[in-house]
Parts: sequence; structure tokens; C-alpha cells
Amino acid sequence: MGNIAADPSHPRYQSLLLRHRLEQAEKQGMLAGSAMIAHGRGEAFDYLLGEQTINSARVATNHALAALRGAKRPVLSLNGNVAALAGRETLLLAEMLQCPVEINIFYRTPQRMKALLEHLGKIKLDEGIDVTILGAAPNARIPGLEGPRAKCTKEGILESDVIFVPLEDGDRCEALVAMGKTVIVVDLNPLSRSAKMASITIVDELTRVMENMLAMMSSPIEDLASNSYDNEAVLDEALHHVATKFTQTSNEA
Amino acid sequence: MGNIAADPSHPRYQSLLLRHRLEQAEKQGMLAGSAMIAHGRGEAFDYLLGEQTINSARVATNHALAALRGAKRPVLSLNGNVAALAGRETLLLAEMLQCPVEINIFYRTPQRMKALLEHLGKIKLDEGIDVTILGAAPNARIPGLEGPRAKCTKEGILESDVIFVPLEDGDRCEALVAMGKTVIVVDLNPLSRSAKMASITIVDELTRVMENMLAMMSSPIEDLASNSYDNEAVLDEALHHVATKFTQTSNEA
Repeated sequence: MGNIAADPSHPRYQSLLLRHRLEQAEKQGMLAGSAMIAHGRGEAFDYLLGEQTINSARVATNHALAALRGAKRPVLSLNGNVAALAGRETLLLAEMLQCPVEINIFYRTPQRMKALLEHLGKIKLDEGIDVTILGAAPNARIPGLEGPRAKCTKEGILESDVIFVPLEDGDRCEALVAMGKTVIVVDLNPLSRSAKMASITIVDELTRVMENMLAMMSSPIEDLASNSYDNEAVLDEALHHVATKFTQTSNEA
Repeated sequence: MGNIAADPSHPRYQSLLLRHRLEQAEKQGMLAGSAMIAHGRGEAFDYLLGEQTINSARVATNHALAALRGAKRPVLSLNGNVAALAGRETLLLAEMLQCPVEINIFYRTPQRMKALLEHLGKIKLDEGIDVTILGAAPNARIPGLEGPRAKCTKEGILESDVIFVPLEDGDRCEALVAMGKTVIVVDLNPLSRSAKMASITIVDELTRVMENMLAMMSSPIEDLASNSYDNEAVLDEALHHVATKFTQTSNEA
């Protein structure tokens, strides 16, 4: 796989590159035991989307970025898979937005936190990115959650008004929405609880989303007041897109 | 997860149990690097099926078993994931069919072969199952394939007339079909190349398939001549089933 991943003209290059990043992250102890299986589920849904940013995902991404740019206290949350797949792009976006990132993992162990802090710290240093990385010393809790997964920081997630939490678990998404925040998720499954609960759901693959957001940062900030956004319609378009793939193929057979 | 996996009343018991088997197999060196991601893709498609054996899958399973029971030289092929998830059930079925099993892995290394042979050997011993396990010493090649993935045994895969190859790669499925064999695959993705290429495609989760086959072994052998089987219709029903899930949910929203 090392050879294939080094050849960008290979048709599976992007997919193999993402796998390679996860394998490296696993060796570094950044990932939970379920990380690879979760990634595989994502691969299946991305395959159904045609491995492309569909129109409704672009609309949602645009709206999400406008919400982050217009926020008083935005924060970008990273878990293990996000740090592995798009740690660099998340830090770059945070620097542009002048907001902190917060490491916020569902299965929290000191070893994983240390590995994630080291990984992001190295990217910051290598790329000369000036961003505050929160999460090492949680001093608050997300109401409605139990155990270590509730831990967060006061100056980051707790007091944020707009939070970007890609690849988030349904329970945590629900708890963040219940706090009155604008919650932006990236989830390839339009039927998932996170997708249904979030304020803004981007049904797209994370590295494409980050690339789109970084590109969109060069446009002027959009006025959200003049922009009616309907998350149900966004999910609906994703569902129809996938359903059409199945029925078209079925009719061709 | 140890605790949850021990409680069959947990709603995710079956799913967690399968993950647990894969984690154990990974520790034993039985799996390829992509095994967990492949399992995740399967989980996503099974979620879309509703984690149930749909009617067309039952029809295909029944027909597949009839083909195996009526075969002159049937063989059951196992890769790492199959051995991990349903090694015991595959050996039990082979014993009932009085046919050999063959370990046949895409990413072949001596270490993986050894781990797989040990795993299956232990099951044979523990359960007192009398089955020939082929694959340790390949003495033939599947025409049309290159490299280690072409290796097989003359007395097993090469000379078989009906072959059961769950979770098979598209290239290998195609090569086996080109040899004129009746090729039975288990694949949760009805759009995959294996699903489309195979003689009989069971769109269902492997452990459910094995359970169904073992149960069906107590019925009399079906007469295939009187049973018109249409694999395209079977795939079509699976596609419609999934598409309906998307459109129904979409309409409810």
C-alpha cells in the first residue's frame, strides 16, 4: 500500500491516503478501538454518495462556515479520527477563524490525550500555526452526559456559541444542542442521530469538507440573516441522492 | 466492551460480539490491515438492510445450499474475516456437506496462514469436527490472477464445481466464475462487483447466513432443476429494500 499511496494518479489514491493516515495514527496510539470500523462505515456511505461533495453538502458547508465566522465564541472540536484525517486543516481553519481547537474524545485515556496533543503540537510547530489547543486539562462538564465523555473546558466547548464537531457521537451531539449552541456536524450517514440532531449537518467526507472550508475562507463573510437555511432539506437531498443511486442501478439491471 | 459483549440482552450485542471476534483475531495475527475497515463497510450496509435477513437473501441462501449439497466437488473458502467471524460455523457446515474448507487469503503471508491454521485447528479439536483444512500448501493457481492471491490447491478450489466464497474480492470472484464454477458469495453491498459477478449472491450478514444454512441442512435436499433462480432479481430486491429505507425516511422527515 505504501507504493499505491505514493501515486496520486491511482484511482483509489484518496481512499488509500486516508487509510494510511489512520494506520499511522493507530500506531501512535491516537485512536479508539472502534476507529477503523467507524472509518469503514464512512467509506460505505461515501461510496453511496459517489465520493463527491453533493450540492446540499456545499450549501451546508457554506452556511456552517458563515456561522463560525459570525460566532462570538467559535470552537473546533477534534476527536482521534478527525485529528488523524484532517488535523492540519482543522488547525489552519482555526487560525483563520482566530478560535481555539479542543481535543474532545469519547474514549478518554491519558495515553490517547498525550498522543493527540503530540500529533497536533507537531503540526503546529512544523507549519508555524498559531492556535490554542484545549482539552488537556478539562475544567467543565457537558450537562446531560455521564463519565469521562462529558469532560470539556470552560474557555472552549462550554462557553462556545458555535461548535464544529465532525464525526460526533449522537449522545454528545444531542447534549451540545440542548445547551443552546449552534452545532455543526460532518456525518456521511444522513440517517444517523447526529445528522438528525445537529443544527447544521454536512453530509460529506471530512477531508473534502475541510478543503472546501479553507477555499471558502477567501470569500466575503455571508450575511446569515438573508440566507434561509433548512437542515431538513439538506438531509432530504442527501437521502434522495443515495436512494436514486440504488433505484437507478436497480433499473439498469 | 467486555461487559457489554457478555450481555446478550444488550441491543448492540450481536454487533459488539462480531467486533470482539475481530479484535481477538487481529491480536492473533489472522487479519489483513484492511480487515477492520472492510468490516465497518459491512456494518453500514447491514444497517441499511435493517440488520435482518431479507426475503431475497433467504431465497439465495436456500438455493446456494441446494447447489452445495448437489455438487460433485463442493468447497468452502475462508479468508481472515470469515475465519474470525464464522470459523466454527463454516467447519460445521463443511462437516455436514462432507467437503473440505480452504484458507484462501488475498494478502498472503506465512504468519497469517499459520495464525489461521492454528485458529481453525483449535476449533476442530475443541468441537471434535472432522474436516480437511486445505490451503497451507498451495499446489495450483487460479487462472487470470497474478501474485500470491492466485494460489490455491488442486484438490480444493481448483477442481471444485461449486465454491462458497464469502466476503470475496471482485477480481477473484470474476476469475472463479471464468473457470466455469458455480460461485456463491456473501456480500452486504448489492452494488459490489462480487455481488454482480457471482452465480449466487447472498446479500446478508455472514453469521446470519451461516446460522440459516446450518438450520436449513435439516430439510431435504431441494431439486434445483424445478427451481428457477434469478440472481439479478435477488440483487434487485436487495437494492429496492435499501432504496425504500432511504425514501421512506426522507418522506417522514
